[in-house]
This record gives sequence, C-alpha cells and structure tokens, in this order.
Amino acid sequence: MPAIDAARLLADLHRLREFGRDRTGVHRPTYSADDMASRHWLAEKMREAGLEPEIDGIGNILGRSPGDGQKLLVGSHSESQNHAGWLDGALGVIYALELARVQPGHIDVAVWADEEGHYGAFLGSRSAVGDVGEADIDAARNAYHGKPLRDALAQAGLAGRPRLRLDPARYRGFLEAHIEQGDDLEATGLKIGIVTSIVGIWTFAIVFEGVQNHAGTTRMAIRQDAGVALVKLCGAIERKMPEVAGPRSVWTVGRIVLEPGAQSVIPGRAEMLLQIRDADPEILARMRATILSTVVEADAGGPCRASATQIFETTPKLMSPAFRAALARAAERHAPGLHQEMPSGAGHDAQIVGKIMPAAMLFIPSIGGISHHIAEDTAEADIVLGCQVLADAAADILGP
Amino acid sequence: MPAIDAARLLADLHRLREFGRDRTGVHRPTYSADDMASRHWLAEKMREAGLEPEIDGIGNILGRSPGDGQKLLVGSHSESQNHAGWLDGALGVIYALELARVQPGHIDVAVWADEEGHYGAFLGSRSAVGDVGEADIDAARNAYHGKPLRDALAQAGLAGRPRLRLDPARYRGFLEAHIEQGDDLEATGLKIGIVTSIVGIWTFAIVFEGVQNHAGTTRMAIRQDAGVALVKLCGAIERKMPEVAGPRSVWTVGRIVLEPGAQSVIPGRAEMLLQIRDADPEILARMRATILSTVVEADAGGPCRASATQIFETTPKLMSPAFRAALARAAERHAPGLHQEMPSGAGHDAQIVGKIMPAAMLFIPSIGGISHHIAEDTAEADIVLGCQVLADAAADILGP
Repeated sequence: MPAIDAARLLADLHRLREFGRDRTGVHRPTYSADDMASRHWLAEKMREAGLEPEIDGIGNILGRSPGDGQKLLVGSHSESQNHAGWLDGALGVIYALELARVQPGHIDVAVWADEEGHYGAFLGSRSAVGDVGEADIDAARNAYHGKPLRDALAQAGLAGRPRLRLDPARYRGFLEAHIEQGDDLEATGLKIGIVTSIVGIWTFAIVFEGVQNHAGTTRMAIRQDAGVALVKLCGAIERKMPEVAGPRSVWTVGRIVLEPGAQSVIPGRAEMLLQIRDADPEILARMRATILSTVVEADAGGPCRASATQIFETTPKLMSPAFRAALARAAERHAPGLHQEMPSGAGHDAQIVGKIMPAAMLFIPSIGGISHHIAEDTAEADIVLGCQVLADAAADILGP
Repeated sequence: MPAIDAARLLADLHRLREFGRDRTGVHRPTYSADDMASRHWLAEKMREAGLEPEIDGIGNILGRSPGDGQKLLVGSHSESQNHAGWLDGALGVIYALELARVQPGHIDVAVWADEEGHYGAFLGSRSAVGDVGEADIDAARNAYHGKPLRDALAQAGLAGRPRLRLDPARYRGFLEAHIEQGDDLEATGLKIGIVTSIVGIWTFAIVFEGVQNHAGTTRMAIRQDAGVALVKLCGAIERKMPEVAGPRSVWTVGRIVLEPGAQSVIPGRAEMLLQIRDADPEILARMRATILSTVVEADAGGPCRASATQIFETTPKLMSPAFRAALARAAERHAPGLHQEMPSGAGHDAQIVGKIMPAAMLFIPSIGGISHHIAEDTAEADIVLGCQVLADAAADILGP
C-alpha cells in the first residue's frame, strides 16, 4: 500500500491556509482574489505532481493524470464560508493532491468551486455533471452582496472559458475526504467515519406581512406586527418539531430579517429561513408537513399573513457500498476498532458527483465539533491518519 | 382672531411633499440632498413671510420675527423617516409658517433637524437647548449606513456654521402641531387632540452569545443557538409584559439580527432592540424590571449568554397647563365637543424645547392611524381646522 508523506501533506495544508487567512481561520469566498490565487497555486502544485491541470469556466480545477486506464477521481472544494475554518474543503483537496503523488498515473484531482453556496450551492460540481445551464449562470447572484455571478466570473478571469463535463467512463468513481464538522467521532473516541449517506437539505423561506406603523402611537390591540408573528411561529416550530423529527434530524433558523428594522417602527414585513436536514426522505416529508401546517395555522389565526416557499431541496444520497467496504478495510488496518459508519449531516460535492459515478466519503474528527468558524481544527495525527486511510482505500479500489 | 389662508396652507404643504417624493409619501432623510433643498426652500418661504431666517450648523432653521416684544416659537421638524409619510414633521412646519403670516411680528418659526434620529434623536432641538456637545457630533454616525455626522454636515454645506442657542427670555413658549400617528381621534370621531404629556421612550439592546456552528453536523442536543435563545426571550416578554404594562403602554421589537445570518450556519450571536413607551415613570420602571429579570433568567437558564443594555432613555414630559387651556378654548370655538386631552405616544421636539420654556402640542387625526409609512395621510378639512385652532391658541397666548 502507498505510504503518504505526512510532513509534505501538513506543509501544503498550512500553505493553503495562508490564502485569505483570518486569525486562526480563513475568509476565502468563491471568486475572491484570495480564492482565485489559491486556485492558481493549487493548479501549479498539481503540475508539480505530474498532473495536467485545467481551471474551467466556473472555477473548477481538474488535474488529469496522464496515461491509459480508468482513474479514480478524488477531491473537494477550496473556497470557504465567510470568516470560517481552515480545513473545510481544503483538507479533501490537499488529501487528493497527496494521493496523486503517491499513486502516479491513477488519480485525477478535482477542486470544485462554490460548494459553499456564495453564488449557488455545489455550483462547480453541478456544472461538472451537467446540471447548470447558461441561464442559471445568468440568473445567479451572490447571496451576501448581490453581485451577479457573470460579473464575478469576469473579474476572476474565467469569462469565456469552457466548463468541463466529467466523463463517467474515465472513472472508477469519486472519493471525498472531509472533516466531520460535528462531535460524533470525538464524543465516541473514534478516528474515522465512513459515510453511509448524505442528508437531504430542504430550506423554506417563511414571510410574514403585517402593517408597518409607528412604534409609539399604535395601540397594542390594533397592531399587525410581522416580527411578533414571526417569533410566535418560531416558538411553535420549536415545540412541534421534536414530535416528528428523527433522532438525527436537525432544523435551523439561520436568518431573520425585520423590515424596516428600526427601533421606532413596527415591522411591516418579516422573513426567516428555516432549514431541515435528514437522511430519511420520509422524515423530511413529515417535518415539511409540520412546517407548512404551522404556517397555514399562523396565517389563518392572523393578524398577519404568513406564507412559506421551499427555496432549496437536495435528495438524500446513498454512498457506494463497495467504496464504503474499501474505506472500512483501510480504516481497520490503520485504526483498528476506531472507525464507524455514519450519515453526513452536511451536504457535500460527493452527493452531486455521485449522480453519475459511484462515490464515497471519509470523515476525520473535528475538535469540539466546531466548523464554519475560525476555531475549526483537527489534531495533526488525525489529519495524517485520515490521508493514509484514504490512500489505502484508493489503492484497494484501483486494484492491483 | 386671525384667519388662516387654507388654500395657501395646503399649497405649501403639497410643495414640500415634492422634496424627496416617494410614491404617496416622502424619502427625505436628514442632510440628504432632498432634505437640504427643502430647508433652503423653507428659509426662502420664511423670508417671503417677513421673517429673518438662518440655517445653523446642525441644519435647524430659525426664522426670527422683527420688532420688539416677546415672541411665540412655533414649529416642528422637516426631515422624514426612510420611505415614510408626507405629513410627519412637515405639517407642523407649514402650520408655523402660516401662523407667522397671519400674526406678523409675533411668531418665530423653528424647523428642527433630525428629530427622526438618522444621526441621533432630536438632534437639532437638543442642540438648540444646549444638550449637544462637539464631542457628541464627532461620535455620531448614521443609524442605517454608518456615515459620520461630521461628513454629512460637510456634504450638506453646514460645516463651520455656528449652532444657534434658543434664548428663553425671547419667548412666551413653544407650540408644535403634529399628526396623531395613532387611531385614537379617528376611532372616537374627534378632530383635535391636546397633548397632556409626551411619553418616555426607553430602548434596550439585548444580546445573546451562543456558539456559531454548522447547521447540518451539530446535533440539536449540543447546540448553543443564539437565535433560538432570542426567540424564546421574545416569547417570554410577550407573555409577561401585559401583566406589568399600563393601559397605554406600548412595547416593540423593531430590529432582530442573527449572525452570521446564513441558512446553513447556527447563529453564534443574536441581537434585538426592545423599546417601551409610557407617560408614567412608575410603569416604565416596572416594565424595565420585567425585561431585565427575564434576561437574567434567560442567561441563567443557558445554554446561551444573555445581556441587556439600555441604550436610550427620555423622561416623560408634562405639557404647559396654560397653553393646554388656550388650545382647548380655541378647539372648542372651531370644533365644539370634538376635542380631547391625550398623551403623546411618540416623542417630539416639544419635549426637548419644553426643558427651557413652556411648551404644548396639538394633534390632528391620522387616517387609519397610519404613520411612518407612505400611506400616512389626513383629510384636508382636518388639516385646515387644525391650523386655525393653532392660530387662535397662539393669539390667545400672545394676548391683546
């Protein structure tokens, strides 16, 4: 089995951290100057590793391995959430680079663009499997500051470049490594997680329409305060959701906006984003039914109008059983008894690439379960162990 | 008694509405180009009315009446809330102009700056009574976009101008007319409100500190979601407040911010503004005690830290009994039986000017009780009636 170079792996990972460094974390939003600089650096590292890298029209990098024979595609994404952690995405990218070095001629490295959804979740991997049309690109805007995707691509020097399409016939399949981003492995003292399936993510925008008015002269009895209606619905969701959710379900209100948002004005409009996740489509459907019926009740009860629109939906994705078995054999060799199968509560590019080829994922522990935050970290020994397990599993999948 | 000119009054009011017109309302934030254009137009109208106008270093206009003898100060503010109504402030300014025309030599007209708090509530009237220091001006920033007040004053052409100080010896007192901004007069079929006292306004910033984390991988049981903590506290406040509030108390959550505010990130920090208003200091104190004890309970109950800071406090202000009597006599003459005494739920410049001279206020009805919104309006007949009542009261106060 191929032996990875731990010092080289860690050095590359720390070098990548310098692009957009923000205290202990990174701020490397998709197509920012720091993101593009890191992509050009990654392409250069691929070239040094004997690959033929290409940055495509959506920012993906595909480093092709020379020679004949089926390849294994390995990779992740390289941009970060805003002011977030240094390992999310970056870890799987540098693992892939190291695998390409120790198994020359067999590994293609993929660095996807915008998995984090600055312009549209999984934008790069969806483009690579043919799920993004030119009209989608015309319509997309930055979720935080509204810049059109076309402008961002032009400023990043990507306008006019062709977008690559993965050829399933070229590949045995796709492997992606990632930090767990939760505390399950740490809490149980395990070192490796082998992903059984990736959860479905459904997001609802819930809007309340009341009457904007003066916060001093409008009697409490006649108010139609959209913010009060929103808070009441949030309370109802918190009470009802545990009754219909599964043991691993999660639900999150990540965003609330009151309009106009001034201390002396009764909010006339309020909006919230409510996201639910589970690996079981039946549980997701139950949670959705509860959300929608609660919104209907709120609307009927008045005094504000309430409505819900589902704005995001991914299907839960089962990982390849054969790849999972290869990952389990490699984990048992290097960390006997210290691995487990588990679902992924986060969405990953593997669920997109998995639409056109077998795909699987390996998790390593996150210290304190913290992710999407500058405190995100993993013990060095765990980082090294994870890469060796992935390298062994890749060799196993590629065969003799 | 002096007879006002209804056609002239309405024409001036509609002309002022054109500065920053926004559909049926106006968008005329303090020191914006539209606000400054309207101030120069108002100064010119004062000059035509025989006054000597001066725009001071904070944007106030004082139109002085020539000749000896004590004057009556009459006025209001001319800027608007963002995308708000056409009468708020503007009404009292044009009433004052009309009074100066029909009672020449006796009325000074005041047009205050930034009552609406774009840079600091009651900024102009507080400056005119000596409550604003240069350090306050150095520190003030726009509440919506953060521009320093100094920059706004420079762009408005006001840098370096002296700030006027009202001389209490020059005045009998101050009269301000305003739309009610509530539905009390309309609901009771009355035409004139005579303000007994202006409510105290106390605002609290309540902050929740949790742990920002990934919305997919962090189990519900270990979350420290600052947004969930905020919603729970809002629910508790809604339940408890009616038990301690008075019959005319109001409380409003006008602003909620979750950080970082993304659908896939558990909020690590959340902040809300909670404002309470009442004319009775004891009721205000009871409401404050309830808010603070609820925050302490939330903090003790965990899992997030909660803290409250009072960021704004005005004292309830009693209006002059002698001026109220003059207003009541004038109202009884022109609208017999159709007037009442009532507190003001909104803050007004009269509470500031009232610190150094007798002050009183007259209200006219607001259609549907709507204010701080482009739908804000009042019937023309009510506008005309209110001005005539104010003119009579002024003549009464000035004496033969």
